[in-house]
Amino acid sequence: MTDIVTMAQKAREASRRLANIPTDDKNQALLEAAHEIRENTASLKEANRKDLAAAREQGLPEAMVDRLTLSDKTLTQICTSLEEVTALPDPVGEIVSTWKRPNGLEIGKMRIPLGVIGIIYESRPNVTVDAAALCLKSGNAVVLRGGSEAIHSNLALAALLARACQAAGLPAETVQLIGTTDRAAVLEMLKQEELIDLIIPRGGEGLIRFVVENSMIPVLKHYKGVCHVYVDEGADTEMATSICVNAKVQRPGVCNSMETLLIHEKEAGTLLPTIAAALMAEGVEIRGCPATLSQVPDAKPVTEEDWGTEYLDLILSVKVVGSMEEAMEHIDCYGSLHTESIVTRDAGRAERFLREMQSSTVMVNASTRFSDGFEFGLGAEIGISTSKLHAFGPMGLKELTTTKFIVRGEGQIRE
Amino acid sequence: MTDIVTMAQKAREASRRLANIPTDDKNQALLEAAHEIRENTASLKEANRKDLAAAREQGLPEAMVDRLTLSDKTLTQICTSLEEVTALPDPVGEIVSTWKRPNGLEIGKMRIPLGVIGIIYESRPNVTVDAAALCLKSGNAVVLRGGSEAIHSNLALAALLARACQAAGLPAETVQLIGTTDRAAVLEMLKQEELIDLIIPRGGEGLIRFVVENSMIPVLKHYKGVCHVYVDEGADTEMATSICVNAKVQRPGVCNSMETLLIHEKEAGTLLPTIAAALMAEGVEIRGCPATLSQVPDAKPVTEEDWGTEYLDLILSVKVVGSMEEAMEHIDCYGSLHTESIVTRDAGRAERFLREMQSSTVMVNASTRFSDGFEFGLGAEIGISTSKLHAFGPMGLKELTTTKFIVRGEGQIRE
Repeated sequence: MTDIVTMAQKAREASRRLANIPTDDKNQALLEAAHEIRENTASLKEANRKDLAAAREQGLPEAMVDRLTLSDKTLTQICTSLEEVTALPDPVGEIVSTWKRPNGLEIGKMRIPLGVIGIIYESRPNVTVDAAALCLKSGNAVVLRGGSEAIHSNLALAALLARACQAAGLPAETVQLIGTTDRAAVLEMLKQEELIDLIIPRGGEGLIRFVVENSMIPVLKHYKGVCHVYVDEGADTEMATSICVNAKVQRPGVCNSMETLLIHEKEAGTLLPTIAAALMAEGVEIRGCPATLSQVPDAKPVTEEDWGTEYLDLILSVKVVGSMEEAMEHIDCYGSLHTESIVTRDAGRAERFLREMQSSTVMVNASTRFSDGFEFGLGAEIGISTSKLHAFGPMGLKELTTTKFIVRGEGQIRE
Repeated sequence: MTDIVTMAQKAREASRRLANIPTDDKNQALLEAAHEIRENTASLKEANRKDLAAAREQGLPEAMVDRLTLSDKTLTQICTSLEEVTALPDPVGEIVSTWKRPNGLEIGKMRIPLGVIGIIYESRPNVTVDAAALCLKSGNAVVLRGGSEAIHSNLALAALLARACQAAGLPAETVQLIGTTDRAAVLEMLKQEELIDLIIPRGGEGLIRFVVENSMIPVLKHYKGVCHVYVDEGADTEMATSICVNAKVQRPGVCNSMETLLIHEKEAGTLLPTIAAALMAEGVEIRGCPATLSQVPDAKPVTEEDWGTEYLDLILSVKVVGSMEEAMEHIDCYGSLHTESIVTRDAGRAERFLREMQSSTVMVNASTRFSDGFEFGLGAEIGISTSKLHAFGPMGLKELTTTKFIVRGEGQIRE
């Protein structure tokens, strides 16, 4: 176990140098990493083949084997995304605000890296590179802990990243990967609160709950995305239908897709059957409340459990509500603080919905599928937080930094 | 234990209403609270006498008994500070920034309350009111857990606060105090991560470590303040002396007082003895490195343990360093990320110190004693964070809020 502590200590040391390294050097390390990956495609695929063989031996579903695979296409994407990160503005050193006190002190806030970030993830080896690149660009050292399925691929990628850092004059310990895949190593990592500043778990709800329950280090996470669309009284038929179909169907397996449709009772007679028909034409199974069932005969009855379920599939729960207030209460009760959207023509209700819903993203007349760091223009996404502390919603580079107070005086002392 | 869960659930319900309550109503509740306290001075003192009697019976030191006492003066201060909080701007609803995407979506960030805040504190009953007032003003419900020494005083104050909330039309559960003082209740509280958004422990390092080790909820805290002043080569004698004396002597028992003085070797011959004499004239005991001892014969030898110690007393450790780099390395190694100040006439080194020190407050030519929410102009202070997540440094009302993304569309769907 001491190697986890040693690793965290080395990351802490590296982070002290990284905090003050020029942007150009960090970008150089990212370009070197892309170069290393392109130069070492053969050995990366060799390492990856070991993971793929083990996956097939264990009988993992073909979809998972597919996500594990480092194909030429995946490797090219990884390199492209490394190059894209070099183009993002460096958040470190930005003066966020300044003000002057009556005694002449100048107070300001300056953006600095968090320090050391621990990332605990499952499956896809491209996360190793993507996450490391964002941590590096924001001046943080990173300790990675990937899933056992991808251990050989991850070790090979992490070795190239460390080499790229050294080639650019950054500490080799900027990027480190934990080489063991047992849970004891994770538990040890989660205790290093004096050495690691932030943990980001990426994976299923089980992994994330394990991390939250055992971590002494702050955790940024979301358990699940149970996103709602509320179709208001008087909503435009075409807009409501198009948003609902997009939110449910465009990519059902991700956290920002719609899981529950709430619709005003005055729209249950005509708009609801129209939306339902459009969804069913795309293969969506509808699970409805009694009022829904009477309008959509092909729907199945919804259960209490459905309301809190993230299907990640072509399934949708539907409820007819008497008012926007009832819709908001339903979301308060069953929502996951991820993303909610109202489709309405009423400006007053749009504003009330935007103001009163306490989810991390609240939308008017837009598909929930836009809830994403890239789509919001953050330039990159390290994850989405439904914890309210530090960052709430999609997180980009800035969310991997904090601010310190800087004070400029001329000898002031306190009376 | 179920009453802790029930309490947290009621706080969660209250927080949903509080998030959308107008500023005027929140201010009205604060004014009602001041009114209630003024009207009920006799019964508050009666409750307080029980705590004082128990404290004397247990033989608590007179200084602690003093801090427990609800005198006329303390009660007046409490009421004044309630009234001052009404004058602070309400952070909730502020649009922090907005931008437009190429597809026409308008993205913005709106400030919202965190939700439910748990405060775990020791001793002084005025914290009950001060902390509750800041949580209320920022639209948060609060669950308070004070120390056993002040339980009668705290219960009496919390009852008045709840009554004031009701009188102003706010939920009575805006402010709740846990009535038991056993640790099991704290442990139960720290598990309610779905109901409580933030824990702020205020007290000794032991209490804070207990909270961090056992909390599944994010914690904002600082363990201790080991603040440094570095006196640079060529520093102004008068300024260096005045800042060092102020930082150490003005109020030695608080976290932003200086605990270690670092001084450039070129200033060891004349400036160090001058500063040391000024400090010793104020009764400060100096514990020095060998180079200090040779210049300040009355100093005692420093030990390795001293460097990391928060004395909270008229004791100072002193080290002569060869360069600013050595000073920064010492701070990196032994500091607590609280506050560091450089006294210098060199603009370049001032900027390097401001940029490279990763503490929550970094100062040039000012006393560390200014590291404080009020002194920084935040209007109020709920505490100081040396955790880098969410808030780093003194925390005011804004740090009790987060931001959500708000998105205004015209029917956009994702391609």
